[in-house]
Amino acid sequence: MAVEQPKGPTIGVFDSGFGGLTVLRELLPLIPNAHYIYLGDTARLPYGSKSQTTIARYAVESARFLADRGADHLVIACNTATALALAEIEVSVTIPVTGVVEPAVAAAQLQHPNAKVLVLATAATVQSHAYKVHCAARGLDATEKACPLLVPVIEEGWIDHPVTRQVLSIYLREALDACSPDIVILGCTHYPLIAPLVSQTLKELGSTAEVVDSASATARTAALQIGSAPSASKSPATFECYATDSIEKFARLGSDFLGQPIPRVELLDLGG
Amino acid sequence: MAVEQPKGPTIGVFDSGFGGLTVLRELLPLIPNAHYIYLGDTARLPYGSKSQTTIARYAVESARFLADRGADHLVIACNTATALALAEIEVSVTIPVTGVVEPAVAAAQLQHPNAKVLVLATAATVQSHAYKVHCAARGLDATEKACPLLVPVIEEGWIDHPVTRQVLSIYLREALDACSPDIVILGCTHYPLIAPLVSQTLKELGSTAEVVDSASATARTAALQIGSAPSASKSPATFECYATDSIEKFARLGSDFLGQPIPRVELLDLGG
Repeated sequence: MAVEQPKGPTIGVFDSGFGGLTVLRELLPLIPNAHYIYLGDTARLPYGSKSQTTIARYAVESARFLADRGADHLVIACNTATALALAEIEVSVTIPVTGVVEPAVAAAQLQHPNAKVLVLATAATVQSHAYKVHCAARGLDATEKACPLLVPVIEEGWIDHPVTRQVLSIYLREALDACSPDIVILGCTHYPLIAPLVSQTLKELGSTAEVVDSASATARTAALQIGSAPSASKSPATFECYATDSIEKFARLGSDFLGQPIPRVELLDLGG
Repeated sequence: MAVEQPKGPTIGVFDSGFGGLTVLRELLPLIPNAHYIYLGDTARLPYGSKSQTTIARYAVESARFLADRGADHLVIACNTATALALAEIEVSVTIPVTGVVEPAVAAAQLQHPNAKVLVLATAATVQSHAYKVHCAARGLDATEKACPLLVPVIEEGWIDHPVTRQVLSIYLREALDACSPDIVILGCTHYPLIAPLVSQTLKELGSTAEVVDSASATARTAALQIGSAPSASKSPATFECYATDSIEKFARLGSDFLGQPIPRVELLDLGG
């Protein structure tokens, strides 16, 4: 595909689906002159319920594709892939890689230096204990809570919906029985869409915890690492979007996550 | 793997995940002397949200694996794969193939010759209109309703749970606004686990529709096609179970679907 390259960096953004578009959304105002290559491995989602070996294989294939397409920085905008396969991804490409876990933990500590942290995430992210390990490395105590139904209800479009409230309330009540967090990390890039609901439900359950969103934390970290655009630059961002399954669904659902219409999506066969 | 073969048929049963075990569960009492080879393509589930091309590619690979393992009859215990890829599967193997759609529709008509039918299924099954087409061929009028959240709530283990009741009630109310069914077909092999809840919710919403379960309808059809065991046979059924992802999860969740502990599961790499 012939794409006119702007002067800024080329940033590869990878997720198992649409969720990573919440990271891209946060990156756009921070690095407006970049060329973005987004890959959603939608044929093989959800990663959250799969094993480490399978997730690592999928993630490495996607990372290599983005590097081969010319990315000079890679953002793994998927908590599950970061939690289970960041090391494998880093050795499989020669460009710098930013994952979502460490930026979210760093943001939590910035907000609350000795925070007790509650992490909401998919089953695979929780089982990896990636957040617990990264929190422990900073002296923070973390409780991890698997919320397998949040991605499906968000993908159903039930963003501010009684069922989503009830599901969230069940998960949060179970978690708050086990800990009293200062910070709640949204450890899945789908969850920013229900961030207001999480804050509200926490209040209803008597918690004063603040919500930290791994998508915006990751975008800020990536922007620092990449270096943001010179302020004089007027080049608008350009996009290439790839999905491994139904591009119609990607374009339709993805615009909710990106917060603007999705540019042209190309179907990609990674051989899975 | 060395497995002692009984005298009965070797039956390959395929699903994207655990759901097809509800068909296997119904097959066991009907053909007790068979050797069963079950394949759950769990690394690539759910099929329900993927495109026809992708589903057909996955299903054909799985069907060929079962034929190569020695199956002399194939049961496609997956509504989505049947709806979107039965023709592709049939031409890819040389053994007889039974899908789930036609048996369910035949069972509906047997119960109610001029039934108005409501089909509950995944998004992909509904989009294929496979049930509508098969119903129309028998002069039956069918309304198809996509229920994307039912598989996730069932896999969460929320079988008789307020959230599942609420989700089901929303889907059924939307469907009953559009039709007054005599028969409700459970067009997904996960749904037998919530069959009592479907019947109860229909009654609560003022419907007198009867529930037809595609899993038991398919097992009865397959048993007729294969020929059931001679009554004198005392050979117990034997099993080979394969999953393309986490065999622990398969063994744990699968026993709920099979209604008995899952025999040893082997991890299979289909190259996806």
